Amino acid sequence: MTFVLQQYLASRREAVEIALNEVLPPQNVRPERLHEAIRYSVLAPGKRLRPTLVIAAAEALGVSADVVMPTACALECIHVFSLIHDDLPCMDNDDYRRGRLTNHKVYGEAMALLAGDALLALAFELIASNISCASTESVLKTLKLLSHASGTWGMVGGQVVDMESQGQEVSSETLQYIHACKTGALIKGSVEAGAILAGADPDQQLAFRKYGNHIGLAFQIADDILDVVGDEAVIGKPVGSDQERDKATFPRLFGLDESRRKANAEVEGALDALSVFDHKADPLRAIARYIVDREL
Amino acid sequence: MTFVLQQYLASRREAVEIALNEVLPPQNVRPERLHEAIRYSVLAPGKRLRPTLVIAAAEALGVSADVVMPTACALECIHVFSLIHDDLPCMDNDDYRRGRLTNHKVYGEAMALLAGDALLALAFELIASNISCASTESVLKTLKLLSHASGTWGMVGGQVVDMESQGQEVSSETLQYIHACKTGALIKGSVEAGAILAGADPDQQLAFRKYGNHIGLAFQIADDILDVVGDEAVIGKPVGSDQERDKATFPRLFGLDESRRKANAEVEGALDALSVFDHKADPLRAIARYIVDREL
Repeated sequence: MTFVLQQYLASRREAVEIALNEVLPPQNVRPERLHEAIRYSVLAPGKRLRPTLVIAAAEALGVSADVVMPTACALECIHVFSLIHDDLPCMDNDDYRRGRLTNHKVYGEAMALLAGDALLALAFELIASNISCASTESVLKTLKLLSHASGTWGMVGGQVVDMESQGQEVSSETLQYIHACKTGALIKGSVEAGAILAGADPDQQLAFRKYGNHIGLAFQIADDILDVVGDEAVIGKPVGSDQERDKATFPRLFGLDESRRKANAEVEGALDALSVFDHKADPLRAIARYIVDREL
Repeated sequence: MTFVLQQYLASRREAVEIALNEVLPPQNVRPERLHEAIRYSVLAPGKRLRPTLVIAAAEALGVSADVVMPTACALECIHVFSLIHDDLPCMDNDDYRRGRLTNHKVYGEAMALLAGDALLALAFELIASNISCASTESVLKTLKLLSHASGTWGMVGGQVVDMESQGQEVSSETLQYIHACKTGALIKGSVEAGAILAGADPDQQLAFRKYGNHIGLAFQIADDILDVVGDEAVIGKPVGSDQERDKATFPRLFGLDESRRKANAEVEGALDALSVFDHKADPLRAIARYIVDREL
């Protein structure tokens, strides 16, 4: 039986979207407009990469998707919270996201701000309610990990330095910091969360953390490359928007060829980290390769 | 020995402020400007009512303040997150808060937005790290409770309906909803969190929940009254700002006298709920009275 990544991704994405539809606040319950705004952005078409990583990590340890589904959904909520706030006029001021009008263009700035806030709170409520197959300690550990990865020591911190770096000369150290925090922290957190909730022992947790680190960086390098050479229809935003904003990127600092080489080296590192796992980790292996091949 | 509330409040406030200074991200660590913005708002002079309620509830059960301090700090982080976002131009567009320039007036809108986001994430990290004297289950329960109270089912939801109600005729049912969610949920949550972490049994938890419900409503009625009759120096914002914004308030719906009667009835309800507890609950009793007497 050959493993087919596209089938795997499609089936997990579908399961995640069914679960998201269930855990998001219903549209007919007060405050209706807020719930409509939340659902508009979360249920917009997406890859569901972070939830899929939570699930794939659990599955690598023989634990099924439904066990970690609340936390998988939480990861998507945290991701979408960051997208809604990033798109606001005081931030990137984007009108389109995933090919649709951004949240504040439809619901207004105040509602978009509050929809993001509500999603972050909901994410932690979901994780706290995720009874683990390991222990309550592992749920608490997941909560600590993901709150740490969402705030100033992760996503928000990376966003701040990214913002401060626009139009500036940026060192490769700062670029790595931005990428490790802004997108890397949550990607790594997704993998670790799935592993911890599935009862990974400390050695296994370390292996997943390494894998997460590598694919997080690979993802961001590939994203930077896509912004230069990608197809607007595929990436869902105008090609060249990073350059336009004078953002710190890998191609800008290292050139396209060297950036591709770095991305591939990260994928190799990710596969290395998984060497102790059996075929149940094949989805994670395929995802690592897929992350840099999106541009092709 | 007579209990002196002002001494109690001052000593707990001091302990909370020392703890906040320790748990907030240091100003000399990257991203420095974000951490400066966070500290600017959290360490601004404040009553620290929510953290004090966490502590007073734990103390009513014979558990000392330091046991619940991380969660006490988390409550202040959630509160300040909401203040920073409420003050933004797309929301209330306030220039002053607690007598000082609002966060975005000093650090810009983008940084204020992200400072609020980081504070919400930090709050859950703090709670998750609060080893309880009861059990890990009680920490998880606290997390569920406070994430629920912060998002669409509490503070954020109340904020949305409050916003939608400006300039509208508002029913007393909607007014109660706004108040119960916007400020009540977090005040009730503070009391419950302290009790749960201190190992309250289900009957005790119910008593604390009732107390929290009553003082939450009393607090908001008193706040509405203060906006009409208060002293600008005491409340830290211009008198009459609710009226100016055409906000739903108790005095507007019921008149001043009836609002005062309602506030006092809530205080009586709060004291009733505490009847099963001994003198260790005196601070909670005094706080209930203080909440409506602030206006005097």
